[in-house]
Amino acid sequence: MENFEFYSPTRIVFGKDTENQVGLLTKSYSKKVLLHYGGSSIKKSGLYDRVVKSLRDEGIEFVELGGVVPNPRLSLVKEGIKLCRDNGLNFVLAVGGGSVIDSAKAIAIGVPYEGDVWDFFNGRQVEKALPVGVVLTIPAAGSEASPNSVITNEDGWYKRGMGSDLVRPVYSILNPVLTYTLPDYQTACGAADIMAHIMERYFTNTKNVDLTDRLCEATLKTMIRNVPLALENPNDYNARAEIMWAGKVAHFGLLGTGRVQDWASHDIEHEISGIYDVAHGAGLAVVFPAWMKYVYKENVERFVQFASRVWNVDVCFEDQEKTALEGIKKLEDFFRRIGLPVTMKELGITDDRMEEMASKCTRGGTSTVGNFKKLAKNDVYNILRIANT
Amino acid sequence: MENFEFYSPTRIVFGKDTENQVGLLTKSYSKKVLLHYGGSSIKKSGLYDRVVKSLRDEGIEFVELGGVVPNPRLSLVKEGIKLCRDNGLNFVLAVGGGSVIDSAKAIAIGVPYEGDVWDFFNGRQVEKALPVGVVLTIPAAGSEASPNSVITNEDGWYKRGMGSDLVRPVYSILNPVLTYTLPDYQTACGAADIMAHIMERYFTNTKNVDLTDRLCEATLKTMIRNVPLALENPNDYNARAEIMWAGKVAHFGLLGTGRVQDWASHDIEHEISGIYDVAHGAGLAVVFPAWMKYVYKENVERFVQFASRVWNVDVCFEDQEKTALEGIKKLEDFFRRIGLPVTMKELGITDDRMEEMASKCTRGGTSTVGNFKKLAKNDVYNILRIANT
Repeated sequence: MENFEFYSPTRIVFGKDTENQVGLLTKSYSKKVLLHYGGSSIKKSGLYDRVVKSLRDEGIEFVELGGVVPNPRLSLVKEGIKLCRDNGLNFVLAVGGGSVIDSAKAIAIGVPYEGDVWDFFNGRQVEKALPVGVVLTIPAAGSEASPNSVITNEDGWYKRGMGSDLVRPVYSILNPVLTYTLPDYQTACGAADIMAHIMERYFTNTKNVDLTDRLCEATLKTMIRNVPLALENPNDYNARAEIMWAGKVAHFGLLGTGRVQDWASHDIEHEISGIYDVAHGAGLAVVFPAWMKYVYKENVERFVQFASRVWNVDVCFEDQEKTALEGIKKLEDFFRRIGLPVTMKELGITDDRMEEMASKCTRGGTSTVGNFKKLAKNDVYNILRIANT
Repeated sequence: MENFEFYSPTRIVFGKDTENQVGLLTKSYSKKVLLHYGGSSIKKSGLYDRVVKSLRDEGIEFVELGGVVPNPRLSLVKEGIKLCRDNGLNFVLAVGGGSVIDSAKAIAIGVPYEGDVWDFFNGRQVEKALPVGVVLTIPAAGSEASPNSVITNEDGWYKRGMGSDLVRPVYSILNPVLTYTLPDYQTACGAADIMAHIMERYFTNTKNVDLTDRLCEATLKTMIRNVPLALENPNDYNARAEIMWAGKVAHFGLLGTGRVQDWASHDIEHEISGIYDVAHGAGLAVVFPAWMKYVYKENVERFVQFASRVWNVDVCFEDQEKTALEGIKKLEDFFRRIGLPVTMKELGITDDRMEEMASKCTRGGTSTVGNFKKLAKNDVYNILRIANT
């Protein structure tokens, strides 16, 4: 096990009707907030009205900024920064999924910074940020308790991430009922994202990470059991609750403690959804199995453990590679079963910009991605090729 | 799943040599601290010198208060409160195990309170507390990230707990190397305490708590695997690290989210160690199996799940009670294997004050303990009887 720090101060308020506490939770931080959201779904569902009522009940003023789209854009972030400055807003309330939260985090670091907020997505350290609060509507990105934000810069379609404990939300409200109305495809994409967050941590060459291995396996098994239940009955509170809580547990830091993590699949997928604007989770469902097929020989034992403990594959001790491949197949089958693509074509991508993506992913071939196996430009290209078959 | 809040802001700094960061971690909170510890072991091991050096390197002044004993005493807490007030100390640094941390927390809430600090152990809500920092030397109580403190009042030998988010340590330093020198019995007692923290949460009648069930099982399995390894080779870094991290994970709140928890065994054990001054973990090893035998029929399925998933017992579907009992037997066998008592006699208790303990535990028979089955005075008495056979 490696030395590590673990720090996750976000207060989680979980369960039915909890969005009505948003005013109460906000008022100790600010009385003037930016209310940030995506499209019209929160208005149709009545969530917008309940949030606004709760804010008004506590005498909190707000300025609105809707319009966040999947793969959230830098231009809207800059608009949000300007709105906060012009109106003296010092709290960003995100009502939505990961894209809205990531956009809110970017606004929160941009407001107190005199330079270009994109600097933080090129490695600049955050020194100050407005507090961010969250009402979550999509379990997927784990941004509700993570220190990360991923933003797409339309100027070149670069999708880049940043991380700082200063952008961990001060509170996150998680009401599983709000996820009843998610389309099946979005539920499935969210599930793939959550599972990917676990697997990015699980696939490591660090030895002696017994507890975190088992916690990862526990969380994956919970997803495998509950996602099909939620798809079968979208109003299944318990299945929705398990998925929503697993989404937070997957990405608040605990599952990666003491181990080198991978994150190549996320890096590769960012290039796909940066260019094609596909759903991040769908992109991950395509990239992850391809990545697995390309790297599993680096550490077959770990893939055998994955197959055995997560998918209950009967281990073939004589031929461990066979068991490893069976585990990868199980994952692929699961993604298909919940309605996700597992090839580039199924994702709707028919042109060939793989060379370009491999290059951007590795900063023109000058760097590598991932840790389980360090992937150069050529490796990324090969993985995209596998995903294309 | 029930509605819940989850909040755990303690920063964990985990790994080799991390105690040398104590000065750096403390200085943003205070430059005048109470250095609180137990006996001479931290001086013998050199830990005391390293902590003092790190504090001095950052220009932090301190006043010392050693002498914390297992089942920490109210009188020393009061001494600590006076020391802080007389010397203007506004941070309590606990270097030790759960008893030292609990004592530090009690001092932290007592300093800003004009009344008797014991009030908080009789239900008074905490409104203010000094920040507490921790260098942990014994994985057991989980106090390093919990909101709880348990103190023994020598006037009547009452052992009582309090809880408040305000006493969660601001940081906790966990270096597994510091646990190499623990005597085997103390390692085992700590393990029983950690496992009990998980089981108090695991045994619930709340339905649909899939993720937390699995996280509990993962943490229990980690303990079952690693405690014997640590006993076999006290300097096994990896086994010590797993136990130390499991001790924190067991008790920082996550494993109990969304479910009604039990805690009867802890309440009953507090009466035993309050009177007889035995190690808390040893007391739990005696009480928990007895409690299980008394209550398992309330919800046999849960005990079957425990037997199957935690202990790999082959489920006898025709006779589920048999499987449940086999799981309880496995736990008892494990406690014995790691050198713990599982009866009152083995704990060294030969006189009969069970009536008195059952009465104190239920406040003279006026209240119940536990939730899996609500236990009246008579039930507690029966459990103590089972523990006595």
